Amino acid sequence: MSIAINGLTQIEKARVGEITEEVARVALDEGLEASFVSEKIASGEVVIFSNALSARADKKIYGVGTGFLTKVNANIGTSRDHLDIDEELNKLDVCIKAGAHAVMDLSTGGDLTEIRARVINASTIPVGTVPVYEALHVACVNGKTIKDITEEDFIAAIEKHVLEGVDFVTVHCGLTRDAVMHIHKQGRVGGIVSRGGSFLAHWMVLHGKENPYYTHYDEILRILKKHDVVLSLGDGLRPGALADATDRGQVHELLVLGDLQKRALDAGVQCLIEGPGHVPLDQIETNMILQKKLCNKAPFYVLGPLVTDVAPGYDHIVSAIGGAIAAQYGADFLCYVTPAEHLRLPTAEDVHEGVIASRIAAHAADIVKYGDRARKWDDEFSAHRMKRDWDYQLKNSLDPVKAGEYHNERKPSKEDTCSMCGEYCSYKLSEQTFEKIMEGPQVP
Amino acid sequence: MSIAINGLTQIEKARVGEITEEVARVALDEGLEASFVSEKIASGEVVIFSNALSARADKKIYGVGTGFLTKVNANIGTSRDHLDIDEELNKLDVCIKAGAHAVMDLSTGGDLTEIRARVINASTIPVGTVPVYEALHVACVNGKTIKDITEEDFIAAIEKHVLEGVDFVTVHCGLTRDAVMHIHKQGRVGGIVSRGGSFLAHWMVLHGKENPYYTHYDEILRILKKHDVVLSLGDGLRPGALADATDRGQVHELLVLGDLQKRALDAGVQCLIEGPGHVPLDQIETNMILQKKLCNKAPFYVLGPLVTDVAPGYDHIVSAIGGAIAAQYGADFLCYVTPAEHLRLPTAEDVHEGVIASRIAAHAADIVKYGDRARKWDDEFSAHRMKRDWDYQLKNSLDPVKAGEYHNERKPSKEDTCSMCGEYCSYKLSEQTFEKIMEGPQVP
Repeated sequence: MSIAINGLTQIEKARVGEITEEVARVALDEGLEASFVSEKIASGEVVIFSNALSARADKKIYGVGTGFLTKVNANIGTSRDHLDIDEELNKLDVCIKAGAHAVMDLSTGGDLTEIRARVINASTIPVGTVPVYEALHVACVNGKTIKDITEEDFIAAIEKHVLEGVDFVTVHCGLTRDAVMHIHKQGRVGGIVSRGGSFLAHWMVLHGKENPYYTHYDEILRILKKHDVVLSLGDGLRPGALADATDRGQVHELLVLGDLQKRALDAGVQCLIEGPGHVPLDQIETNMILQKKLCNKAPFYVLGPLVTDVAPGYDHIVSAIGGAIAAQYGADFLCYVTPAEHLRLPTAEDVHEGVIASRIAAHAADIVKYGDRARKWDDEFSAHRMKRDWDYQLKNSLDPVKAGEYHNERKPSKEDTCSMCGEYCSYKLSEQTFEKIMEGPQVP
Repeated sequence: MSIAINGLTQIEKARVGEITEEVARVALDEGLEASFVSEKIASGEVVIFSNALSARADKKIYGVGTGFLTKVNANIGTSRDHLDIDEELNKLDVCIKAGAHAVMDLSTGGDLTEIRARVINASTIPVGTVPVYEALHVACVNGKTIKDITEEDFIAAIEKHVLEGVDFVTVHCGLTRDAVMHIHKQGRVGGIVSRGGSFLAHWMVLHGKENPYYTHYDEILRILKKHDVVLSLGDGLRPGALADATDRGQVHELLVLGDLQKRALDAGVQCLIEGPGHVPLDQIETNMILQKKLCNKAPFYVLGPLVTDVAPGYDHIVSAIGGAIAAQYGADFLCYVTPAEHLRLPTAEDVHEGVIASRIAAHAADIVKYGDRARKWDDEFSAHRMKRDWDYQLKNSLDPVKAGEYHNERKPSKEDTCSMCGEYCSYKLSEQTFEKIMEGPQVP
């Protein structure tokens, strides 16, 4: 388990035709040719999260991008208003059990270094962070303001996270002054809803300076390259209201991200592009095409998209609708949204519901993107449903625990049915009907 | 409140240019021209549920079809394995409070006549039923089998429901022998999953006869016309597995339904077409186009569609994904699916979650179908979210109760934020940033 430590990153090794251990693993896991995966890593269409500093035998790695099944990320982390590390570690456990493929620690309350260390230590899936939160939080707990944060502080936070072993970092490098001014001139209903984006825009305005993550981009690439940490180029101007979707600010930032992705690729740094946000149903496909076209087919990591603004308490459903369509049209990595979004920090139960909703969206899209490879699960499941094979159904459900609880709460009187239809089970009747037809000749 | 009792149905009155009281009411409710609604009723593109026998001052009526916001139906009802009338009446109350526009009593256990009477009496929204369940249930409780049910029994069940005051009935008139034989020859993973469809197919095979609801169609139209009860032409062969979507059986039945819809329209009977079912994401648009084209733009009433087979316990989310896309491409009426689907009879909580999930799907689609008329809600909501106006947000959420509970469970330390970001609220920072830009000249 060593990547950049040998001096070459996944991209660089792929370029010289070397099939790394990580490429071989993720290719095998999904039944892909290792040479195909290697080519896609070289072209920037696939990334593998794998910082050698936190590699362990029990830690999974995944491929994200062209040819891979759609993956799901879950966000956990404290806030200053709700700070309980054990609760966050429990959420991590819930995420993993629910089938998340990566987790981001977005903590902004308490001892962030300790929390991160515990999350990285406990996680068997790749861990991502947003280093700018650290820069802000350290300033605030030391009685400083956003204005007091220096350009060095911003960069130092990234290096700190990389050395602690995070596998990917979100950095809002494309949030330039020009992009902010587009929004200022055009106006927005929801302003800047990205937490990192709003910090940076505020810092930029206070200092009258360009975004330090943009001006120091080469330095960031150098830091990430050392341990082959994946750069997730954040969308600081993602729309936070339907009215703001696909606006000039958002699209301007995407243009910049396309340039930055190319520079990362040239430097041998793996790169994802982050995307919206709140987007009406009929603009999702356009957003997917735009990103793939403007950003050289780099893997697209979307939050939602949320297809309405008015359903807090159910934003996991709102996002599952948008996420399914996004993934159908090219999104590779879905960031979950929990029912608590817009209302409060999520509980462990919210986290579970959020992961499952995103997995449903991902799988629904994979059925379309990958055909039998993904749909085999559905076809086999339905064949057993037809046979009223409850053991199989409950074991092979997307969430076996919940399916089992539901089914067992109201037991049917006949074992091979369920309490919805009981003996009027359409599967049973249907089976008998076709048997009867086989006997003939009732239906000509 | 009288319709057919005067001798003319909504369709017949619309044809002679009479604006009925019901047309005036539904037009006013949605800001449409009454003449437009009347034209669409005459052409069969819009229906209004309103059986004069159960009309009451507190009972709402709705338009369903072209130009109207997408409506949501909720199914309630006992089964033989779970039979508690009070629980079903509580579910009715939950449906109405959650914002369902119609309810179907699908009871198949206990004294169906009593249950139906109590549901009709308690409901302030239109009530639909599936009379074939009655025919089957009465036979079964009297120790008879499906084979013993006569053609007269099937028809009598419809008349009974009409006279009891139901506003719409699902009848599987298009499930012909030819359609069943298509499925037999072609094979299916999930067989016939429509309960009514599976009864009828079984009866047909046992008797070697055509579907009595097809052969006695004119009689059915006469019965419905007397009280202007809406005919919902059931899709007995809707796919119950992704593998069976858009197959020959399903499409054959749709062709027959197109003919039958035209005959209903000619006879002055309002008519809906029911649709799938389990359908992969990329076949939903096709299904909507097919139905509108083959069935003369009649309102389309879809169950789901469910975009994966493998997520029992979460089929409200699976259906919200499919329902949003279906409604975007033309479905007018969404039949909810609860988290309990495929597992057991739903609880009141399941019913609530199901209605909300369908309302999210309907609204997400209406934003696309109707632009500002539907999106005004989102834009105003987001403007208040930007201002951290919690009173407004909690009151104007799609489900104010749940949103309030969530927000209040973990109170923020600063009132104008929430416990997710606390004082690092991106809305607050964003507001300050743009105020600062206005002061100039930090960002050129």
